[in-house]
Amino acid sequence: MPRRSGARSRAGTNDPAGAVIELRPGVPDLSSFPRTLWAAALRRALATAPNSALDYAEPAGLPVLREAVAGYLARTRGVRAEPEAVVITAGFTSGLSLLGRALHRRGARTIATENPGLVRHRDVLRAAELTVVPLAVGPSGAEPGDAVGQAALLTPAHQHPTGVVLAPRSRYRFIDWARRNNAYLVEDDYDGEFRYDQRPVGAMQALDPERIVYAGSTSKSLAPGVRLGWMIVPAPLRRDLAAEIFDAGAAVSVLDQLAMADLILRGDYDRHIRRMRLVYRRRRRQLASSIGVPLRGIAAGMHALLPLASATGEQRLIAEGRRRGLALTGLHGNGYWHEPEGQSAALILGYAAPPAHSWPAALSLLTQLVQQSAAELVQNRGPDGVTVGL
Amino acid sequence: MPRRSGARSRAGTNDPAGAVIELRPGVPDLSSFPRTLWAAALRRALATAPNSALDYAEPAGLPVLREAVAGYLARTRGVRAEPEAVVITAGFTSGLSLLGRALHRRGARTIATENPGLVRHRDVLRAAELTVVPLAVGPSGAEPGDAVGQAALLTPAHQHPTGVVLAPRSRYRFIDWARRNNAYLVEDDYDGEFRYDQRPVGAMQALDPERIVYAGSTSKSLAPGVRLGWMIVPAPLRRDLAAEIFDAGAAVSVLDQLAMADLILRGDYDRHIRRMRLVYRRRRRQLASSIGVPLRGIAAGMHALLPLASATGEQRLIAEGRRRGLALTGLHGNGYWHEPEGQSAALILGYAAPPAHSWPAALSLLTQLVQQSAAELVQNRGPDGVTVGL
Repeated sequence: MPRRSGARSRAGTNDPAGAVIELRPGVPDLSSFPRTLWAAALRRALATAPNSALDYAEPAGLPVLREAVAGYLARTRGVRAEPEAVVITAGFTSGLSLLGRALHRRGARTIATENPGLVRHRDVLRAAELTVVPLAVGPSGAEPGDAVGQAALLTPAHQHPTGVVLAPRSRYRFIDWARRNNAYLVEDDYDGEFRYDQRPVGAMQALDPERIVYAGSTSKSLAPGVRLGWMIVPAPLRRDLAAEIFDAGAAVSVLDQLAMADLILRGDYDRHIRRMRLVYRRRRRQLASSIGVPLRGIAAGMHALLPLASATGEQRLIAEGRRRGLALTGLHGNGYWHEPEGQSAALILGYAAPPAHSWPAALSLLTQLVQQSAAELVQNRGPDGVTVGL
Repeated sequence: MPRRSGARSRAGTNDPAGAVIELRPGVPDLSSFPRTLWAAALRRALATAPNSALDYAEPAGLPVLREAVAGYLARTRGVRAEPEAVVITAGFTSGLSLLGRALHRRGARTIATENPGLVRHRDVLRAAELTVVPLAVGPSGAEPGDAVGQAALLTPAHQHPTGVVLAPRSRYRFIDWARRNNAYLVEDDYDGEFRYDQRPVGAMQALDPERIVYAGSTSKSLAPGVRLGWMIVPAPLRRDLAAEIFDAGAAVSVLDQLAMADLILRGDYDRHIRRMRLVYRRRRRQLASSIGVPLRGIAAGMHALLPLASATGEQRLIAEGRRRGLALTGLHGNGYWHEPEGQSAALILGYAAPPAHSWPAALSLLTQLVQQSAAELVQNRGPDGVTVGL
C-alpha cells in the first residue's frame, strides 16, 4: 500500500530484537531526540514564565518563541524576517493546510507542486479546495516553466524525493513568475540545516520575502511527534492566515512553545543540530562508500536516491530486502508522482532513521542486497529497457 | 469590543502591582497551573517512552493517553467509552472545528447552539459551513423544542453563560430528538468536574453514547495554553472525523500527550482538580455571602451570574467597576446571544480567574461596587422597566 513519507510504517520497527530495520526517508533517528535537554528546557521555562503565558495564546504564537525563531532562522538559514512575520504552527502539514485555506480565501484556486513530491501535501492542498498541478523535476530541481496558478510549493534546498537542489537560475525564474502573476511561493525547508558537502545554501525566501512563505519544522531536527513548526509569512497574507487559524481553532501548546524558545535561546537547539549533522553526514559517507554504486541527490538531509533500472526491479529489490530484514521505500507505489506514475525507478534511502545500534547492520544488509542485485541497478538495464530520467 | 469568553482580555491583567483585576469567566487561576507537577510528569514520561512514541502519531492520539482518558472520564464523569472512541484534540475549539467539518462531510448543514452561548463556537461552526440556529435557554437549560437540523451543541452540566443545569427531562427530549432525526448531540463538558453543592451530575453522554459526542479539555482544569482536550466519538462519526483530521494535518504534540497520560495515571490530575475544586468552592461561597444579593446559576465551574435590571445599567456598572480597578464581563456586547441581543442583563462573574493574592481585593471591590449600585440590580427595576428573563 502507498506509504506516505512520514506516515508511520506499519511494516516494522527499529526493534533491537532483530526485526525489520527501516530506512524510512524523511524521518530522523528517533532515539536521538534530546529527551533530557527538552525536559530541562521545559522545567526552566516553566520556572520563569509569567502566568499570562499560560492563557489563551495569540494565534500566531508566543512572542518569545516568535522572536527566537526569527533570530534563529536569520542566523542559520539567511531568512529575512521580523518576529511579526513568524507564525508558529503545529508542524508543516498543519501550517500548509491553513495556508492553503488562506490562499483560497484570497481567491487562489490552483497551486503547483513538485512531481515527484509528497502526496500528503497534495491531499492537504486539495482538501483546502485548491487544484494541484505538477511541476516537473529535473537535475536542477523543479521546472519554473511549468508554474501555473496562484502559488507553487517547492523544496529548494533538497528536493524530496529526488534530492537535487533548486538551481539559482530556477529560483529567480520562479520568483519572476510569482511577481508577474501576483502569486506566492511556498518554500518547504524541511531539512535545510542538514548539508554535508558544503555550507548550506541559504533560504530562497531571502531573495523575495514579499513573495515567499518560508516554512520549516522540528519534525526532522527533533522528532515528528513534537508537532511544532513555523512559517514566515509575507505581510499581505497574514490577515487571511490569522482568520483561518481562528476559524479552525488551531493552536500550539504554550508549554512546547516555551520549551522550544528556551532551547533556541540557550543554544541547545543549535548544538543538537550540529551533533546530528555530524552523525548523518558520517552515515551518508558510509552509505556512499559501502554501497558501491553512485547515489543521486546532494549530500544533505536524511535521504539519498539509488536509481534502479525499472519499476519491477524496484519491487523485486524491496521484496528481497524485506526477506532480509530491511524495510525499503521505492519511488513507485508511494504516491510520489502526481498521476500517472513516472517511469524512473529508485530506492529512496532514509539513512537517518535507524537508531545508532542498528545502523551498522542496516548498512551491511543494504550493501549486500545491492551488490547481489546487479540486475536491478541502472547500469544494467533490464528487459524493459527503461531509461532512468533522474 | 465584544470579548469572547476565553479570548485574552486586552483590558488588563492580574498584575500584582495593582492594576485592574479581572473576573474573566471561563478562565481558571493561571497561577495555579501545576508547573512542577507537569515538568515532573514530562520528565518521567520522557524517561520511559519508547522511541516509537516520538514518531508521527496516530491522528486520534497516543494509545496510552486515549486509554488513560477513557478510564479517567468513566471514573469521574460516568462517560461510557472504550479507548478507540477517544480522539485527542488540541483543545475544545479545535475539536469542534474538525467535528463540524466531519458532520458537514456527512451531509449535515444545520446545527443548533444555545442562546445565549459562546460566539466563538458559532463562528467556528459557520466556518465549517454549517448554518447555526438558536436554542433558547431557560431555567432548565436549553429548550429541546427548538432543536432543528442535524446536530445540537449543549453545555449540560453548567450552561455557559447562564449557569443553569440541563434538566433530566430536557436531556431525554434532546436524545429523543436526535434519534428521531438521525442527528447528533455535542456535549461540551468544559467544567463538569467542578461542582460545589453536590456530587457532579454525570455526563449526558452515558444516556446514549451512540448519539452524543462528549468533549472536554484541560483549559479550565489546567490552563488554556495547554491546548489539550478530547472527544468521545460515536462509531459512525469516527471515519469522517479521521478524514478531517488528516486533511487538516491536525495533530497534538506527543510530548504533551505523554505528560498528560502520566499525570492521569499517577492520580496527579485528580488530586490537582480536587485541590482546585476546594479553592473555587470557597470562592463561590465567599462571593455569594459577601455580595449580598442572590447569584444565579448553580454552584459550579468558574462563573456565576449576577442579574441586573437593564443593559444600560450593566454598562454603567462595568464602567464604574473599571474605574475602581475591576474588569467585569456583562451579558451584553460579548456575542453571547445569536442576533439580536436579548434583554436580560447580568454580570458574568468569573471568580476563578484572579490569582490567590488578588482574590480578597477582587471580592472586596466587587462587593462595594454591587452594594453601592443598588439601582442597577434586578430588585430595583430602572426606568427601562426591563424584566429579567433568566
